[in-house]
Amino acid sequence: MTTMKAAQKRAQAKVEYNAFLAGCPSRQLLDRISDKWVVLILCALGGDNSRGQTGAAHADTPKAMRYSEISRLLAGVSQKMLTQTLRSLEHDGLLTRTVTPTVPVTVSYELTDLGLSLHHMTRGLRNWAQTHMAEVLANRENYDARTS
Amino acid sequence: MTTMKAAQKRAQAKVEYNAFLAGCPSRQLLDRISDKWVVLILCALGGDNSRGQTGAAHADTPKAMRYSEISRLLAGVSQKMLTQTLRSLEHDGLLTRTVTPTVPVTVSYELTDLGLSLHHMTRGLRNWAQTHMAEVLANRENYDARTS
Repeated sequence: MTTMKAAQKRAQAKVEYNAFLAGCPSRQLLDRISDKWVVLILCALGGDNSRGQTGAAHADTPKAMRYSEISRLLAGVSQKMLTQTLRSLEHDGLLTRTVTPTVPVTVSYELTDLGLSLHHMTRGLRNWAQTHMAEVLANRENYDARTS
Repeated sequence: MTTMKAAQKRAQAKVEYNAFLAGCPSRQLLDRISDKWVVLILCALGGDNSRGQTGAAHADTPKAMRYSEISRLLAGVSQKMLTQTLRSLEHDGLLTRTVTPTVPVTVSYELTDLGLSLHHMTRGLRNWAQTHMAEVLANRENYDARTS
């Protein structure tokens, strides 16, 4: 019966929350998850991090990553931005942060099931941007030629 | 043969663009589409705009909408932000803007096929935020209780 209860809870949640409404908490949550660093962190931890992967046809292999590994993979992210984003994802329960008392200490991050469910949504965004980049660039050129 | 060529082009695009790289144009495109207003505009024009819809189980009915309709639906958006976002989506070829010479003129917006393909990615984000809001709120409470 647990499954039915969860389904009922989800059905109820859909009625209660509407991101079109300015005051709805889901508007603020949508704002938080609609962020390129969130998308890229989820791609990294979700295992969808190699060049040329489609993020659609293969099974991802989620993995724990150290702070320094994530930082290296997400070229150009500032320490401040990365730390803040990881903390907010931990706060929302999307990833866990584990400190291992080595010398120096090792800090690693791993997606929770909830984080993985969001990853399944956001991986499509990165993939879409990479797949349609040429088309968007052509559209921009056409637009600029028409309006100049 | 057109289909094969398009598929080859897409396969090539995947190799060329990588949003993990700071200088890659797809990083900037990912940044642009990872935006709550983009997500909500695409939901509106994609027909996924009523309260309580899951955005997964039903077929969307894309439609043309007037500026004023979009503005009303996206509670809290400023005129400046809405105008800027619509213009950048038009620039990228994700929607078309049609001016009808009524008095006063009618301006309407409609998704292109490219915009619709992005909508199929972003609709999941809004849906995820609405569906998992209760779980995220519970996670935040737990986190705050553990760390205070």
